[in-house]
Amino acid sequence: MTLWPQHATWNGPIVMIGLGSIGRGTLPLILRHIACDRSKFTIIDPDDHNKHIADKEGIAFIKKGLTPKNYKSVLTPLLTTGEQAFIVNLSVDVSSIEIQKLAQQTGSLYLDTVIEPWPGFYYNSKLDNAARTNYAMREHLLALKEKYKGAHTSVSCCGANPGMVSWYVKQALLDIADATKVKIKEPKTRAEWGKLMKRLGVKGIHVAERDTQRAKKPKPFDTFVNTWSVEGFISEGLQPAELGWGTNEKKLPPGGKKHKTGCGAAIYITRPGAETKVRSWTPTPGPQYGFLVTHNEAISIADYFTVREGRKVTYRPTCHYAYHPSNDAVLSLHEMFGNGGKKQSNIHILEADEILDGRDELGVLIYGHKKNAYWYGSQLTIEEAKKLAPYQNATGLQVTSAVLAGMVWAIENPKAGVVETDEMDFRRCLDVQRPYLGQMTGVYTDWNPLQDRQTLFAEDIDKRDPWQFTNILVK
Amino acid sequence: MTLWPQHATWNGPIVMIGLGSIGRGTLPLILRHIACDRSKFTIIDPDDHNKHIADKEGIAFIKKGLTPKNYKSVLTPLLTTGEQAFIVNLSVDVSSIEIQKLAQQTGSLYLDTVIEPWPGFYYNSKLDNAARTNYAMREHLLALKEKYKGAHTSVSCCGANPGMVSWYVKQALLDIADATKVKIKEPKTRAEWGKLMKRLGVKGIHVAERDTQRAKKPKPFDTFVNTWSVEGFISEGLQPAELGWGTNEKKLPPGGKKHKTGCGAAIYITRPGAETKVRSWTPTPGPQYGFLVTHNEAISIADYFTVREGRKVTYRPTCHYAYHPSNDAVLSLHEMFGNGGKKQSNIHILEADEILDGRDELGVLIYGHKKNAYWYGSQLTIEEAKKLAPYQNATGLQVTSAVLAGMVWAIENPKAGVVETDEMDFRRCLDVQRPYLGQMTGVYTDWNPLQDRQTLFAEDIDKRDPWQFTNILVK
Ligand SMILES: NC(=O)c1ccc[n+]([C@@H]2O[C@H](COP(=O)([O-])OP(=O)(O)OC[C@H]3O[C@@H](n4cnc5c(N)ncnc54)[C@H](O)[C@@H]3O)[C@@H](O)[C@H]2O)c1
Ligand SMILES: NC(=O)c1ccc[n+]([C@@H]2O[C@H](COP(=O)([O-])OP(=O)(O)OC[C@H]3O[C@@H](n4cnc5c(N)ncnc54)[C@H](O)[C@@H]3O)[C@@H](O)[C@H]2O)c1
Repeated sequence: MTLWPQHATWNGPIVMIGLGSIGRGTLPLILRHIACDRSKFTIIDPDDHNKHIADKEGIAFIKKGLTPKNYKSVLTPLLTTGEQAFIVNLSVDVSSIEIQKLAQQTGSLYLDTVIEPWPGFYYNSKLDNAARTNYAMREHLLALKEKYKGAHTSVSCCGANPGMVSWYVKQALLDIADATKVKIKEPKTRAEWGKLMKRLGVKGIHVAERDTQRAKKPKPFDTFVNTWSVEGFISEGLQPAELGWGTNEKKLPPGGKKHKTGCGAAIYITRPGAETKVRSWTPTPGPQYGFLVTHNEAISIADYFTVREGRKVTYRPTCHYAYHPSNDAVLSLHEMFGNGGKKQSNIHILEADEILDGRDELGVLIYGHKKNAYWYGSQLTIEEAKKLAPYQNATGLQVTSAVLAGMVWAIENPKAGVVETDEMDFRRCLDVQRPYLGQMTGVYTDWNPLQDRQTLFAEDIDKRDPWQFTNILVK
Repeated sequence: MTLWPQHATWNGPIVMIGLGSIGRGTLPLILRHIACDRSKFTIIDPDDHNKHIADKEGIAFIKKGLTPKNYKSVLTPLLTTGEQAFIVNLSVDVSSIEIQKLAQQTGSLYLDTVIEPWPGFYYNSKLDNAARTNYAMREHLLALKEKYKGAHTSVSCCGANPGMVSWYVKQALLDIADATKVKIKEPKTRAEWGKLMKRLGVKGIHVAERDTQRAKKPKPFDTFVNTWSVEGFISEGLQPAELGWGTNEKKLPPGGKKHKTGCGAAIYITRPGAETKVRSWTPTPGPQYGFLVTHNEAISIADYFTVREGRKVTYRPTCHYAYHPSNDAVLSLHEMFGNGGKKQSNIHILEADEILDGRDELGVLIYGHKKNAYWYGSQLTIEEAKKLAPYQNATGLQVTSAVLAGMVWAIENPKAGVVETDEMDFRRCLDVQRPYLGQMTGVYTDWNPLQDRQTLFAEDIDKRDPWQFTNILVK
């Protein structure tokens, strides 16, 4: 029997909301690495297709969907047993903000992997584009953060991305400082981190992901296939494209809009993110197209590393997701948008055993510094993932191990209030997570978005400044 | 032993240029249906990977690439044996125009499936966009046509599309007249056909193709996979998008340009066709995205059905290709464009036995008339294709059977000069071809490009006139 390192102990109740692809992959990691009492562990999900996994582990399963009407009555008894509870929210269609409020009211710790709204938000054509952004949702989180300063720890958006990639950014900055021989003292505060990034000359960051996992069977017709939540991917893919908007950018992209209120760190584009392409780079393919799908980290990272003098912003990196999902997901998007953006009749998340080969190569491409660009991240193969933990593919394991790390950190830091992963101890979190990440790679590249540009058609490009977003966006 | 119907007899030499995916599929059809002397049959190709097929049939194979320098010396002896020869050009990188001239000079019949230039045309970034169009190449053909009026028959662009689909258009018009109870006499001349189309109220035509053939094995990384010529598809895909430009269109698309000279039937768009999407419809998926890849038929059909009063154009349909290639080809395009449009390290044409299932659904979607839109075409499955003829998948068989039909027609009409398929006897040709086309389907649909349009983002659409090209183009 393997003896797993116990990273933390949790004596009170654990309430996991959602037992989908991420929930079921997280469960064994919690049981391995957090000493806890299974009899106080409850899972809630309206769909019981993964219930057998809870059963096998002797964990209570409540087949119920949380709604704005029932969430208080369903959750409160579980959170008020006399011991502090931990809520792990890995569902779709359940408001992160409302559950976090309840967590504060009941004195519980909390963690999620995305700021999720109640149903009716993503596809509400009565909301304008600005209102449907992650920026808008994050502003609600920032208000909560303000309200619950120093209160019970409530970790927002702690998956792979958003989540782990924020820890990568810090490690990568230290690597770049080292490689470019910039003498530094390791930053301790947010302001110091921002100054370091500025000093290194960073213009921006792609969360540059390539998922090369290939299914054994070809994608069925009229089926959206993905390596993680189909619902999650479609809903974010139909939000407006969004990106943290750096101080180095000269002009807004076509359809690009600034927000009228809030932190000001990001812009949105009046197009679906999953139908907006950007040029990016990851180690395996080299140059590739990614989709400019909106993600919380694009905003939180740009915000975290913003440098101000007084109220004036003197530095901010551009930051966005550049996601090349699995080939089957690329085809699924093409099929869905070709049908007016209507979801296919069937959805399917690829299980580990359905995958022939491939890996999820997920990292941060930090560009604009002396060594041009540096990709730092995890290259986790499906074979490795299968060996490392049950019930998940490579994509899942990068997420679930971040959830584990975030839970450990929260238990160790129970009075941090509402936090984003940028604010957590990146070393501690990566230490917990690293055994599950496969090959960690840091590699410099001389690629930039003007390189190898085809010459058959005239393009509107900025030749003087290769890393301008206008060169990155595919028009 | 099956007794194949002999559609024609050819006693002289047959010279086939190119033994690629189309050449090798055409060979058995010629041998089946045209009584000919194998000892006078020669195949020329610089690549001998299909030579074993020629060997098996006892046909001479010359391993040589035709070039501007050698084509006369290589071909002339084969074409001047004393008997009239037939040149079937199924190659890439060999100038159709130059070979047709040589055909006329040697008194040979000729057929090709595309107007192909010598190498150096498609990827010549010194040529401007207008010069790299199929429109420009077709103007050279029209000049040849003028020069060789009533001379030896030289059939241009007689594959599936361009080719067979021109025959479908005529059949479909007769079907629509019938269904909409428009009393007509079947047109005999080009002018009469144009008037019929106008009278039916047709606004335009999509050559609407969906290839659902799925490979047994997932697409290898860094490999362009297609169901027919990869070289052919890449080269046309990197030409500017082009379309026959109908009189009903109100405004040019972004980047749309008119030509300064020539027949005036088409416009081009300053973007690669294979990176330009349109909304279209075929029976199996219903609404889908297709690529606006330039094709000769988009121009020839729009030109053929143009109605003039004096010199003034009073009617012309819009016409373009809306191609959803096989899923592996969709992924291959995404991969190639993601890498700056550079061709992958490997190319692969799927052989019949590598295909798990699927069909090539290739037809014409004729829209704007009283019954909205009518799709007429072939739905040929890979299973049927495998039963019907060797060495080809469903895509190939639609092309090779059109080559057969065109050859039969040319033999029966040896003094037609340079012809496009629009000018040929569509009934005779389809009669020859039909046994190889699987299910022939004619179906009306109430779909139009405004239907099921997502409502989350404001779009620049023409609500009053659904079939405007501005509604069809994906922006
Ligand atoms: N940050 C990251 O890196 C990251 C990565 C992957 C997924 N995610 C997020 O994690 C969440 C879960 O992803 P997944 O892949 O497991 O999704 P999934 O679709 O596989 O599972 C979601 C689960 O939520 C359940 N659910 C639906 N409505 C519910 C309700 N009202 N109450 C309780 N449960 C409900 C579903 O039945 C399902 O089992 C999604 O929000 C997704 O966006 C984040
Ligand atoms: N109209 C249609 O419906 C249609 C459909 C498919 C293909 N096509 C056209 O038919 C042609 C052949 O298609 P394919 O799928 O067989 O392509 P392919 O790439 O499989 O084969 C092309 C062949 O031409 C040969 N070739 C290359 N250079 C040559 C030269 N200099 N001299 C002689 N031969 C040469 C190649 O070696 C190869 O065997 C292409 O031009 C393609 O665009 C037309």
